Amino acid sequence: MSNAKVLPLLEPADEGAAPCCPPLTERPFSPEEAETAARMFKALGDPVRLRLFSLVASHEGGEACVCDISDVGVSQPTVSHHLKKLKEAGLLASERRGTWVYYRVEPSVLAAMGQLLTVRSVA
Amino acid sequence: MSNAKVLPLLEPADEGAAPCCPPLTERPFSPEEAETAARMFKALGDPVRLRLFSLVASHEGGEACVCDISDVGVSQPTVSHHLKKLKEAGLLASERRGTWVYYRVEPSVLAAMGQLLTVRSVA
Repeated sequence: MSNAKVLPLLEPADEGAAPCCPPLTERPFSPEEAETAARMFKALGDPVRLRLFSLVASHEGGEACVCDISDVGVSQPTVSHHLKKLKEAGLLASERRGTWVYYRVEPSVLAAMGQLLTVRSVA
Repeated sequence: MSNAKVLPLLEPADEGAAPCCPPLTERPFSPEEAETAARMFKALGDPVRLRLFSLVASHEGGEACVCDISDVGVSQPTVSHHLKKLKEAGLLASERRGTWVYYRVEPSVLAAMGQLLTVRSVA
């Protein structure tokens, strides 16, 4: 965990886990908000990455390594490449233990993205 | 509304508004589920498209036309191009009234995407 970077969708630690952006239906996004949120949506905008993300997110204990992933139809280096992209987008955190790097989903990031998609009630 | 196509994230009408996919944390996505959901995430994975989407989603009355959009720093043809992409991804519906095409967000699609991002509670 010592290598964990500040997740791009979250404010700095002293702000707690406040997400970067309001719900998409609340007001127009600023350019900066759009840059931050688009980076995360883009990371999930690839079918293989999305499958890998759901594999990690639903894996026992909430984490998985490349060694746990065998049935997405791409090579292990490709799996590693996609996991790295998901990490760079702030969606996964990673930790090396022995031979393998283990990945887990950042629940606060999922919650923040979920909030983006909150539907404003229209009277 | 007569031109509205079946939204890709939703089941056919006889199934009601059931979303295509379970929460990302529930189980690994199938290839088909990943294709469908990734298409929507990808559409929101561009900062200009995301700003346009939030402009439409937060606009008075829940709809907007190109004529309402002037401050995203791109030309009107580019705005039209991005709105078309969002429509093709099933995120916006459109209706021509007189000179202009009006776009509005599909609330059921936002709700379905929000459900994808539901965080499974971990004991």
